[in-house]
Amino acid sequence: MTTYNYPKFGAGLWHFANYVDRYAVDGYGPALSTLEQIKAAKEVGDLSYVDVPYPFSPGVTLSQVKEALADAGLKAIGITPEIYLRKWSRGAFTNPDPVARAEALKLMNEAADVVRELGASYVKVWPGQDGWDYPFQVDHKQLWKLAVDGMRELASANPDVKFAIEYKPREPRVKMTWDSAARTLLGIEDIGLDNVGILLDFGHALFGGESPADSAQLIIDRGRLFGMDVNDNLRGWDDDLVVGTVHMTEIFEFFYVLKINNWDGVWQLDQFPFREDNVEAARLSIRFLKHIYRALDKLDIPALQEAQSRQDAMQAQRIIQNALLSSIEE
Amino acid sequence: MTTYNYPKFGAGLWHFANYVDRYAVDGYGPALSTLEQIKAAKEVGDLSYVDVPYPFSPGVTLSQVKEALADAGLKAIGITPEIYLRKWSRGAFTNPDPVARAEALKLMNEAADVVRELGASYVKVWPGQDGWDYPFQVDHKQLWKLAVDGMRELASANPDVKFAIEYKPREPRVKMTWDSAARTLLGIEDIGLDNVGILLDFGHALFGGESPADSAQLIIDRGRLFGMDVNDNLRGWDDDLVVGTVHMTEIFEFFYVLKINNWDGVWQLDQFPFREDNVEAARLSIRFLKHIYRALDKLDIPALQEAQSRQDAMQAQRIIQNALLSSIEE
Amino acid sequence: MTTYNYPKFGAGLWHFANYVDRYAVDGYGPALSTLEQIKAAKEVGDLSYVDVPYPFSPGVTLSQVKEALADAGLKAIGITPEIYLRKWSRGAFTNPDPVARAEALKLMNEAADVVRELGASYVKVWPGQDGWDYPFQVDHKQLWKLAVDGMRELASANPDVKFAIEYKPREPRVKMTWDSAARTLLGIEDIGLDNVGILLDFGHALFGGESPADSAQLIIDRGRLFGMDVNDNLRGWDDDLVVGTVHMTEIFEFFYVLKINNWDGVWQLDQFPFREDNVEAARLSIRFLKHIYRALDKLDIPALQEAQSRQDAMQAQRIIQNALLSSIEE
Amino acid sequence: MTTYNYPKFGAGLWHFANYVDRYAVDGYGPALSTLEQIKAAKEVGDLSYVDVPYPFSPGVTLSQVKEALADAGLKAIGITPEIYLRKWSRGAFTNPDPVARAEALKLMNEAADVVRELGASYVKVWPGQDGWDYPFQVDHKQLWKLAVDGMRELASANPDVKFAIEYKPREPRVKMTWDSAARTLLGIEDIGLDNVGILLDFGHALFGGESPADSAQLIIDRGRLFGMDVNDNLRGWDDDLVVGTVHMTEIFEFFYVLKINNWDGVWQLDQFPFREDNVEAARLSIRFLKHIYRALDKLDIPALQEAQSRQDAMQAQRIIQNALLSSIEE
Repeated sequence: MTTYNYPKFGAGLWHFANYVDRYAVDGYGPALSTLEQIKAAKEVGDLSYVDVPYPFSPGVTLSQVKEALADAGLKAIGITPEIYLRKWSRGAFTNPDPVARAEALKLMNEAADVVRELGASYVKVWPGQDGWDYPFQVDHKQLWKLAVDGMRELASANPDVKFAIEYKPREPRVKMTWDSAARTLLGIEDIGLDNVGILLDFGHALFGGESPADSAQLIIDRGRLFGMDVNDNLRGWDDDLVVGTVHMTEIFEFFYVLKINNWDGVWQLDQFPFREDNVEAARLSIRFLKHIYRALDKLDIPALQEAQSRQDAMQAQRIIQNALLSSIEE
Repeated sequence: MTTYNYPKFGAGLWHFANYVDRYAVDGYGPALSTLEQIKAAKEVGDLSYVDVPYPFSPGVTLSQVKEALADAGLKAIGITPEIYLRKWSRGAFTNPDPVARAEALKLMNEAADVVRELGASYVKVWPGQDGWDYPFQVDHKQLWKLAVDGMRELASANPDVKFAIEYKPREPRVKMTWDSAARTLLGIEDIGLDNVGILLDFGHALFGGESPADSAQLIIDRGRLFGMDVNDNLRGWDDDLVVGTVHMTEIFEFFYVLKINNWDGVWQLDQFPFREDNVEAARLSIRFLKHIYRALDKLDIPALQEAQSRQDAMQAQRIIQNALLSSIEE
Repeated sequence: MTTYNYPKFGAGLWHFANYVDRYAVDGYGPALSTLEQIKAAKEVGDLSYVDVPYPFSPGVTLSQVKEALADAGLKAIGITPEIYLRKWSRGAFTNPDPVARAEALKLMNEAADVVRELGASYVKVWPGQDGWDYPFQVDHKQLWKLAVDGMRELASANPDVKFAIEYKPREPRVKMTWDSAARTLLGIEDIGLDNVGILLDFGHALFGGESPADSAQLIIDRGRLFGMDVNDNLRGWDDDLVVGTVHMTEIFEFFYVLKINNWDGVWQLDQFPFREDNVEAARLSIRFLKHIYRALDKLDIPALQEAQSRQDAMQAQRIIQNALLSSIEE
Repeated sequence: MTTYNYPKFGAGLWHFANYVDRYAVDGYGPALSTLEQIKAAKEVGDLSYVDVPYPFSPGVTLSQVKEALADAGLKAIGITPEIYLRKWSRGAFTNPDPVARAEALKLMNEAADVVRELGASYVKVWPGQDGWDYPFQVDHKQLWKLAVDGMRELASANPDVKFAIEYKPREPRVKMTWDSAARTLLGIEDIGLDNVGILLDFGHALFGGESPADSAQLIIDRGRLFGMDVNDNLRGWDDDLVVGTVHMTEIFEFFYVLKINNWDGVWQLDQFPFREDNVEAARLSIRFLKHIYRALDKLDIPALQEAQSRQDAMQAQRIIQNALLSSIEE
């Protein structure tokens, strides 16, 4: 029996929270503190990293978080400033009110400090409220300028910290400004700084009509893949379902592209198990990701590359099904 | 100058609430009581009806609601039991737990009592948590049976009250059980009772890939159009935008079908102005709806019907643009 | 090693044709005759049935088709009248011109004769041109009446023959009249005849936002599942890709529902391998379908049903992944 | 009464062709020659420009086309090489076969010659067959390199001619390589030549989840808007419907952005009236576009810009509805 040298697994700490939405306004369960969420993450057993939202839950201090992470055997990979709360419901970087923009920058600078304190890899910047809802609502030129200038200001003020933009087509805004891999790369070129990159979320790429594998390649080729998240959805929304429950083949292709590019970061979960046991959801995910890892090991890569050089989809599928569904060769 | 005999306008009372979602967990504004929402509805100036969620906000009594409605010159058209709160996050009628199902029925029976007390037209039944999230999660036969049997039990226990099912493709569940006009009509046939019908939401039909006009005709032809809501979206989600901001032509066709069928109910708003002034959003909506009403008055219906008898899309569009965009005839 | 008693496999004969579309107007390959297509179907090696378009290619006679099928060891499962050619580009049953409608009926009656001659199971009715393209183009009430009345006239004139309606949301019309499982069942109830049922296409259900498994259950519960087709797509269009290349889990759930309902018809391919080797595409498909069949054999159905009774998605997924990805248990 | 100085109108010459698709393989009407199409374009009465597919229909010479255009009072704005016919069904620039790639380049170089001969503005490059259909079919890095290198080779060989890439998310390939505004701009930066730009198709942007107005601004800001096409669709496919039949507000916003940027090119139709009278379809389109032009004249731009500076969607909508629906002010 082969022993596998699995990658490090991680999760957004919110995986272990309870959620609200516009209907279940009393929440899908009682609110849990940052420390309680860390304890739940520990229970999973296979996690090495978490991405920690900031500010922490009311009353929780940085030293408590440090201690809780140490107790749980976890490290922070990223810090996610919550620039999508009420104060920024009309935008963080692109808010028409300069006071709100300044407050967003302040929070993100604090998040950079927490990255330094915890030795994390990056500030994750997810400006979910930056964008628009209605035709004619915004001056598109001005909006894009605010988005790019704000990111530049943030990153140039913290040259020792990495900033990973997580793009998404929409939600909660009807349209998000940083909506796709290509648009984000264009913006990053305009910013012109080395410490701005991308956190590629598999589900966001699927939702946006991208091939996540292609997006990964494009971002890697420009040296900007700072992190990644996985999950699943039905392509029409950011469902944040458990990875592998819908798109087995495309997640396999995504990790294949990471492998052939020697990208060796953390395999990270960004899932919202609204109605599921959070720990069990994480375990099911990691079980599946380990299967993917082993399947990559079994994959006949030279044969696949030969088929791809001819763009032979049937042969490529035969090869990858052999690895993904090993019993298919019976 | 023509004086128009406009229809009665209404709105879901939540139009005047503040909202939360899974990101802005502190809400897009402070929570507002049922009574405060009624006051805001009054401010609009053109509203005659509201659809009232039940239970009312904490501490508010039925007599207070009655009084507030009377003060505001408003009547309740429907009562919407909130069978999508935490207790029913895994389903109301289709919850696997019979205790949760019984509690949902209890709440809906109470809502029927409020309908009687307020002289409203119907209980609106929107089982947004009934459905599933993952492939293989449910036994589809059993789920559909729970959905249909529960509706039958509710309606047969309250033969003097109408129940209007509001279908929607999804959200908050990844897939809703009552997802389309046709599926809901099939279920209603299985239920076999006269007091179960449909609340047709324009945006839900669009989101589901239906022509709202066609759905209205289908439901009317079976005598089941108990009520309707309007709003707008980008077809990919239930955005609950202000009516008329995206789909001018299709909302015009929707009201055209209601007119030629002599459907004379309330023109009702179901909108979520997350980041807008709620009163202003309602006023803009009604201004647009009055335009639609006048455009129907100007519409050359015999000419349109002649074009439709030949399925002549170009001629039909020319005719309806003449009415919808009167300046086009300059 | 287990020997499996695989189901019978079939394919639409067009699987072995060459195609045109609005861009490659000179076709993706040279036109192939009905007889050439049958020869290619034979090459696959695992096919027992084909669905044969009618009329046959120019000059080919019924007796030639009979002979070719016999030579190839194939039987006709269905006959598909091509009621979507130029003559019916504005509709077959719903064409505004009664002459075109009469010609469509004539062709379908001829197809019924071919069913009788070849001992096939059904006429497949796919009215892809019945519907509309523009808002306001049609009188929805009249259009639906034409659709239902036409089907009734056809089926009542041929009480000894089954007619299987294949619904699809759209294409080539922007909106098809028979667009979903539920709408088609509603229409079938209006028709009121036992010999009208449904050909359920997995990809059409996915494209329409349905769970194909749920649609299968709904149709079976009304005794109307006359046939089925499989393929794959990205949910946004009827791509007619090779089955199993995208949605492994949902196709598994689809066949699971057929199995627990003891539906034992032909497992049939409806694929358009525009740029692929048609025979190889069919072989890859059947290889995958055999894997699904074996996975169903390995599936712990009682455990799955127990999980489903609690709507426990995580446990259900764990169980089905054990079967679908047998190596996951290593 | 105001006299308006309308823009020049144009159309893809295929607007006046007949079409085939994968179902109506005998075509929606008889094939029409390039010369017959030019005659039909003349009939419209308001067209000044056409975009001419190349090669011309069999037997038609360049001098005949010149003469026919002159007779019709039309000029060529662009030449569209048909790099999506059978020979390139597996790709033009990205075809795995270098012979096919060379033949595609040869055809495009010929198209550049026709541009010179006819004094047209650009070669329109629409590589609709460049992309992929299946997960794992291609090496994404290699595919993108082929796409970019091929465009560079073409453009650098013809420095006196402009090349306008028309992006689209998909069709006929399941995924097109040049799929969005941002991706195309990224590629254009990699190409690094001034004579490569974008033909922005309103419907392609809508289909891709973009705001066409935002895409126009982004492309203009980089100096790459070489041309544009309008039409309409339901956002889920490139329906190529008649402009203004669905998205009145968003087409208005699109032209608003062109106006405030002083973009003064041809307002061009890219529509496929499969089942309509082509001339009537063009006339209805231009009637609507003139309405848009007049509405822009009526639009209170300073007030709109003030509302946009506050991102006040309600006020912005009120202002634009005043212009778009002038009767709304009654």
